Amino acid sequence: MKKVETQFYTFGKTRKDRLTLKSGVLFGPVTVAYETYGRLSPARDNAILLFHALSGSQHAAGINKSVPGVGRLWQEECHVGWWNDYIGPGRALDTSQFFIICANYFGGCYGSTGPSSINPRTGRPYGARFPRIEANDMVDVQVRLLRHLGIERLHAAIGASMGGMLAVNLAVRYPHLVANVVPIAAGLEVSTLQRIHNFEQVYAIESDPHYNRGDYYDGPGPVDGLALARMISHKTFVSLAALTSRARTEVVDRNARFKTYPLHYPVESYLLHQCQKFVKRFDANTYMLIIDVWQCYDLLKDTGAEDYKTLFAPCRHQKYLVFTIDSDVCFYPDQQEFMARTLTRCRVDCQRVTVHSDKGHDAFLLEPKLFTPHIDYALRRG
Amino acid sequence: MKKVETQFYTFGKTRKDRLTLKSGVLFGPVTVAYETYGRLSPARDNAILLFHALSGSQHAAGINKSVPGVGRLWQEECHVGWWNDYIGPGRALDTSQFFIICANYFGGCYGSTGPSSINPRTGRPYGARFPRIEANDMVDVQVRLLRHLGIERLHAAIGASMGGMLAVNLAVRYPHLVANVVPIAAGLEVSTLQRIHNFEQVYAIESDPHYNRGDYYDGPGPVDGLALARMISHKTFVSLAALTSRARTEVVDRNARFKTYPLHYPVESYLLHQCQKFVKRFDANTYMLIIDVWQCYDLLKDTGAEDYKTLFAPCRHQKYLVFTIDSDVCFYPDQQEFMARTLTRCRVDCQRVTVHSDKGHDAFLLEPKLFTPHIDYALRRG
Repeated sequence: MKKVETQFYTFGKTRKDRLTLKSGVLFGPVTVAYETYGRLSPARDNAILLFHALSGSQHAAGINKSVPGVGRLWQEECHVGWWNDYIGPGRALDTSQFFIICANYFGGCYGSTGPSSINPRTGRPYGARFPRIEANDMVDVQVRLLRHLGIERLHAAIGASMGGMLAVNLAVRYPHLVANVVPIAAGLEVSTLQRIHNFEQVYAIESDPHYNRGDYYDGPGPVDGLALARMISHKTFVSLAALTSRARTEVVDRNARFKTYPLHYPVESYLLHQCQKFVKRFDANTYMLIIDVWQCYDLLKDTGAEDYKTLFAPCRHQKYLVFTIDSDVCFYPDQQEFMARTLTRCRVDCQRVTVHSDKGHDAFLLEPKLFTPHIDYALRRG
Repeated sequence: MKKVETQFYTFGKTRKDRLTLKSGVLFGPVTVAYETYGRLSPARDNAILLFHALSGSQHAAGINKSVPGVGRLWQEECHVGWWNDYIGPGRALDTSQFFIICANYFGGCYGSTGPSSINPRTGRPYGARFPRIEANDMVDVQVRLLRHLGIERLHAAIGASMGGMLAVNLAVRYPHLVANVVPIAAGLEVSTLQRIHNFEQVYAIESDPHYNRGDYYDGPGPVDGLALARMISHKTFVSLAALTSRARTEVVDRNARFKTYPLHYPVESYLLHQCQKFVKRFDANTYMLIIDVWQCYDLLKDTGAEDYKTLFAPCRHQKYLVFTIDSDVCFYPDQQEFMARTLTRCRVDCQRVTVHSDKGHDAFLLEPKLFTPHIDYALRRG
């Protein structure tokens, strides 16, 4: 596997150069951790921006064993790019044709400036002093990166899950920057069930006394709260049917316990294992921040558009390829149905594809063969 | 509304009279808090045993403003019986014909012996010293109550949600005690999603430092953990569609916060309000205990039967009326479909009724008109 290195771009060191957040706050400096795959063409017209999902990183392809400044969070499970099987010569994002960019979100914990970064004014992590940010801010930071790379037009913006929602935010707020939009297992709006799951996770982290309002970098941190938050979300990423059938064949250690509670079923120890692994590789403040951005995602509010017709009016040159995973219980198929119906009503070219998988939401990570033909075709055509 | 009083029956004061738990442990004394409605016929053949749901109580009908020994947990919302509109002359459970008994579960916090009761050996609440119990134990305690009341045969066992599961446990383990069985919005087995939700709730309570392994009666108790547990389960009791449409018309106080998190959406403040109300009326140890009983509910394991055919062989004289609520996301309709299919395959008389409601699982509390005709007909016929 090809070795890759994370690169860094920093802006906003001077007052004039700072980022104006949606809230009006001026913020800087901002470092963006990013990786690129393939080569930018001399005409600079072959760039694809890839957005990662909630707990993903800039490291989408190849192998990368360490990221400067990230420390212990860069666990072994981060070393292989999260979309490795989608990126490379002859793959869905063909590096012999396209220049692919993936950046860690602003607010993230894998090298981009976030709550766990050192605040240059205090010499200590921002923690609770990191500003509240929104989807627009995350996207604007990536636009600053594109400018830095000299890219004025993207061949495509692609993302799955929350990454799909950010790709759409970019496409509607910078319509002339984006030609193709590929949201996978995403939605135009946040569903009530997602809002509830998100709020439960906020509750779990906030209630952990080690959270300490976000200032926990000198202590153990909200390990229990973050683990429970991950448990709550994890069940929406997998297929319960697959989990059930797998659980039938597994046996639980009779002495296994969670604190005082004796573990009875494989599904309990499976979830416990997943979330205990997760807390080693993720920062709780970043988790809270991204959950909050997701919770408040609202294309109409974020653009000031009165309705979807107005919102999508400047986007009629764009082409959407919208993916549904039939077993997805995080972004249910009706969310993409709504997206496709809305785009069509607003006269934006849209093709919707439903893939059949028993792997649930995470199928976008696990089953490249289901997505590759359509992505490949759309990118070559467009 | 008719005033009613909770009655108490205590057994197991002597070693010989103690309850043998499924685990083998001998336990006593056990007090059962119960209420009755209507009159037991001279032939003692008109009794109906009603099982409450997870957080319910013995107080199913009429008005009861206090229960001796329960103290502050008997909040105002407990005063009116939880199935008041189903119980009375001319109602689903017709008190002019039937004698209805409802008892607080063994392990409960509304007057029956549970973790918050005073351990006579120490003079302090049992807390962590309360034994682990299972569905069989909860049911066996109710059977002891029936014996005390001189009832050798029940016209019917009825219950919704977890109460429906306990009604089935009673019916299969004491087949000649029960003629009619009415499980509402219940199941024969625990689904994977239920197991996950239950485990998340265990995690929430265990992780609250004020839980202190169950010994918290001198302190504030695990208020945050219990509230989050309730939040996790509450979403499965209501209809998300109804919640969404209601949320559209409500506004959130701009300054409302949950600890540091600013509340953005009506669904957040709604859930917060619901679970903050709940913690005032429920004991965390009892909650953990009932969740654990639910989690481990397993008719085959609990009876030692090899399969459902063997389990239901002695039950062929029974008649089941199985209710499905179409919008239920706690006990999904396929769980009752499985129940009905299994009963029919095992040659137990079974009628399944699906009611249409937009209120979700809680429709069994809120919409008596959907259930009354069939319950009334089945009880009169049988």
